[in-house]
Amino acid sequence: MVFPQVEAFRGGENLIRVVGHRGARGVLPENSMIGFDFSLSINVPLLEFDVVLTADDVPVITHNHRLHAPSFRGADGLFLTGEEPKVSSLTFEQIQQFDIGRLDGLSAYGQRFPDQAQLDGVRVPRLMDLLDLVSEPKYGDAYLMLELKSDPDVVHDPLHRGNFVGRVLQEVRAKGLSSRAVLHSFDWKLLEECQRQAPDMPSSYLTQFPDNADDVGEDSSKAICPDLRGRRDEIPNLVKQAGGSLWCPYYADVTAENVAYAKELGLCVAVWTVNQHEEIGRMIDLRVDAIVSDYPGRVQRHLSDLGISWRAGNQ
Amino acid sequence: MVFPQVEAFRGGENLIRVVGHRGARGVLPENSMIGFDFSLSINVPLLEFDVVLTADDVPVITHNHRLHAPSFRGADGLFLTGEEPKVSSLTFEQIQQFDIGRLDGLSAYGQRFPDQAQLDGVRVPRLMDLLDLVSEPKYGDAYLMLELKSDPDVVHDPLHRGNFVGRVLQEVRAKGLSSRAVLHSFDWKLLEECQRQAPDMPSSYLTQFPDNADDVGEDSSKAICPDLRGRRDEIPNLVKQAGGSLWCPYYADVTAENVAYAKELGLCVAVWTVNQHEEIGRMIDLRVDAIVSDYPGRVQRHLSDLGISWRAGNQ
Repeated sequence: MVFPQVEAFRGGENLIRVVGHRGARGVLPENSMIGFDFSLSINVPLLEFDVVLTADDVPVITHNHRLHAPSFRGADGLFLTGEEPKVSSLTFEQIQQFDIGRLDGLSAYGQRFPDQAQLDGVRVPRLMDLLDLVSEPKYGDAYLMLELKSDPDVVHDPLHRGNFVGRVLQEVRAKGLSSRAVLHSFDWKLLEECQRQAPDMPSSYLTQFPDNADDVGEDSSKAICPDLRGRRDEIPNLVKQAGGSLWCPYYADVTAENVAYAKELGLCVAVWTVNQHEEIGRMIDLRVDAIVSDYPGRVQRHLSDLGISWRAGNQ
Repeated sequence: MVFPQVEAFRGGENLIRVVGHRGARGVLPENSMIGFDFSLSINVPLLEFDVVLTADDVPVITHNHRLHAPSFRGADGLFLTGEEPKVSSLTFEQIQQFDIGRLDGLSAYGQRFPDQAQLDGVRVPRLMDLLDLVSEPKYGDAYLMLELKSDPDVVHDPLHRGNFVGRVLQEVRAKGLSSRAVLHSFDWKLLEECQRQAPDMPSSYLTQFPDNADDVGEDSSKAICPDLRGRRDEIPNLVKQAGGSLWCPYYADVTAENVAYAKELGLCVAVWTVNQHEEIGRMIDLRVDAIVSDYPGRVQRHLSDLGISWRAGNQ
């Protein structure tokens, strides 16, 4: 089966794709509409982002299962302190009370993004807000790498899983965008459910070795991702067998061998989150299909300098 | 005389302004409409940019007097080689043939901006394009630091000077924006002409010591700016005497003393081009009024971390 949205992420002769990670987290608040606008404006129409369900079953775009204290401010203008409330315990309306426009510079997380613009009045978007945006005719070339975030507390609950996938698909289908989104997750069980409910949509398998899975200030993939240690060279085959169309490994986990093997199997290889100059160079050398980055402009600079395109044809 | 546009650049108690340099050169192509859009979108409505006249007397926004080879590509898609043609020798229509969306990564200039997004089909804007943009009601809080670039070849020609200033003022006035622009230059003679033709508009005096005036790949200020070596502590008074409202020194030239003296004289002090983290911190410590940067988001991060605002009141 050829999925047009998989081809949108596939590289080629003199072509490596650029994907804006959470919009463009290095430049603008993560998972915000202004971040997606920016990525689209610089001709990076491949958007990676994270979806979680609220208490009232609204798919919203945010990374962690709990409101993330270093980037969430309450009505008092202060960053959250104490226990972070769960997204799934709040209604969409309640979540709209928080401002996600700034980073707490005192936090280790905040210090990771020293160039991020600081804004006020930025809200957690609904998945539907982004679907509406890319439905505008001028963004007909936008494709979505829609990450479904599995909550470790309910990861084994098939009812929850079915409902989550169902709610997301309902919105994607309502906007007629099933041919422009890939369903992306660390949770292989959830991707199985995606394939059951949406055989017409491709699955994108995220992987990360547990030794590399401790990004400061982020929900770890360890609770969700299968432990693949010792199977580095088998991963592409495992993804393929599971029904995957894309393999999305953490950049530190890839080798020339497993990239080549994945491509041989017909998988599209999109590596994340590649921010440092040396790593961008290394991923280009490995000829991955796509580079997911918080700094899409930086990746463009590398590709442009090498005469490599990030858009197919005359786009 | 109180000029509202000078107050827009003035800092205060817990307030330091951020000015987007050539739009936001670190993030997007310099002096491009997309760069100005970006700066406005991140709530940095103070825009610095450069104006030069074409052969057919159209004020266009570009920095150098000659098309800048590291950022100008011809119809063949290649960066210019050989002698760079002068802007003043080309019509506006001819200049529109060039694409300014990318940087030549092989050039020393290109290497200075490793994060700049790379685009195709970006054109040199007319001054009028930017005036039209900031005339939109939603950008009523935008103010312009309009740099008039004096061509060293004709810097002593009063007819040329009068015509250049006249053409720029004609456009600013046609859009009713004389209360939202400051007239900014290294050329003190030209600012005298500005004051003659537009006594209702404030002058902004750029200064740079010749030892610091060799930015890679840029027209040097040496041919234009008075040589102020040995008069470091007098400069604010010289600017004031010349009729200046703003003093815009190169960041390496300022001291606690001359900043304090300038403020005492009622001058607004806007330092440029402040890109490195340590220098941003130093300028904040000196309590300048405004920081002009290629990375306005980076300056916001510093200010936000310190609880300092870059917008007055509830803006």
